[in-house]
Amino acid sequence: MTPPEPRPPATRRADVLAKLTAPVVDAWVATSAADGPYLVPLTLAWLRERIVLATDGKSRTAINLAATGTARLALGPTRDVVMIDAVLEETFPVAQAPSWVADGYAASTDWDPRTAGGSCAYLILRPDRIQAWREENELQDRTLMRDGTWSG
Amino acid sequence: MTPPEPRPPATRRADVLAKLTAPVVDAWVATSAADGPYLVPLTLAWLRERIVLATDGKSRTAINLAATGTARLALGPTRDVVMIDAVLEETFPVAQAPSWVADGYAASTDWDPRTAGGSCAYLILRPDRIQAWREENELQDRTLMRDGTWSG
Repeated sequence: MTPPEPRPPATRRADVLAKLTAPVVDAWVATSAADGPYLVPLTLAWLRERIVLATDGKSRTAINLAATGTARLALGPTRDVVMIDAVLEETFPVAQAPSWVADGYAASTDWDPRTAGGSCAYLILRPDRIQAWREENELQDRTLMRDGTWSG
Repeated sequence: MTPPEPRPPATRRADVLAKLTAPVVDAWVATSAADGPYLVPLTLAWLRERIVLATDGKSRTAINLAATGTARLALGPTRDVVMIDAVLEETFPVAQAPSWVADGYAASTDWDPRTAGGSCAYLILRPDRIQAWREENELQDRTLMRDGTWSG
């Protein structure tokens, strides 16, 4: 079966933004520590050009991110992927988050971490590199953002 | 909306095996290096209780796995997940793989790495821990395999 023609970069960028701003967006979030990789699905919000995650501040994801400052995220499915290399910009304990984060996260997702209480925190990630591809024939030109700047 | 009742462990285990043996299975494969996490989708085959991946032997996934020996894999979607912590057991360059690997991989997936030539390799991973959950109410009892042994 012949795959469809590769999408031009502008289409891919629009498709990436559509995925990031869909009603409830789950990402696969990979982080790492000295003892190896960690990976877990988390619900994200795309706010002010940042990826906002919410998770327990004592989770392995939060601890790894605090230590290394970097994560690699994937939006699927596996044959229509968006890969995002991101750096940790800021962390807010739930009770101390500014309203653009807390209200924005609740409005974009299907839960409000403020109701979870405890040690939940928002992690604000700045995308550094974004890639998007479907099949093999889209591997070329897959990089849409480099060093935090959209190309083209 | 109330989620369905949590699945009992035997059902989850059957669901995991159904996912692993479905016609074409793509996994998110997280590995790590000193400079951080790596994550990429790869097509797997489940053969002889092992996860078989095929990728360029010079890819970051192959290099990271050779260095650390561990990967964490996810099968989705994000609200029906299987998480697998696995260790690298063996690596075969495509031309030197035994037939259970090479024929088995081609029969289980939609491509045959033997036709790709070059530096493609099979990575044989032994699952050490397997977890499966759908929603929050399945987080309890999510661990189905510990230290390479199915529980229960």
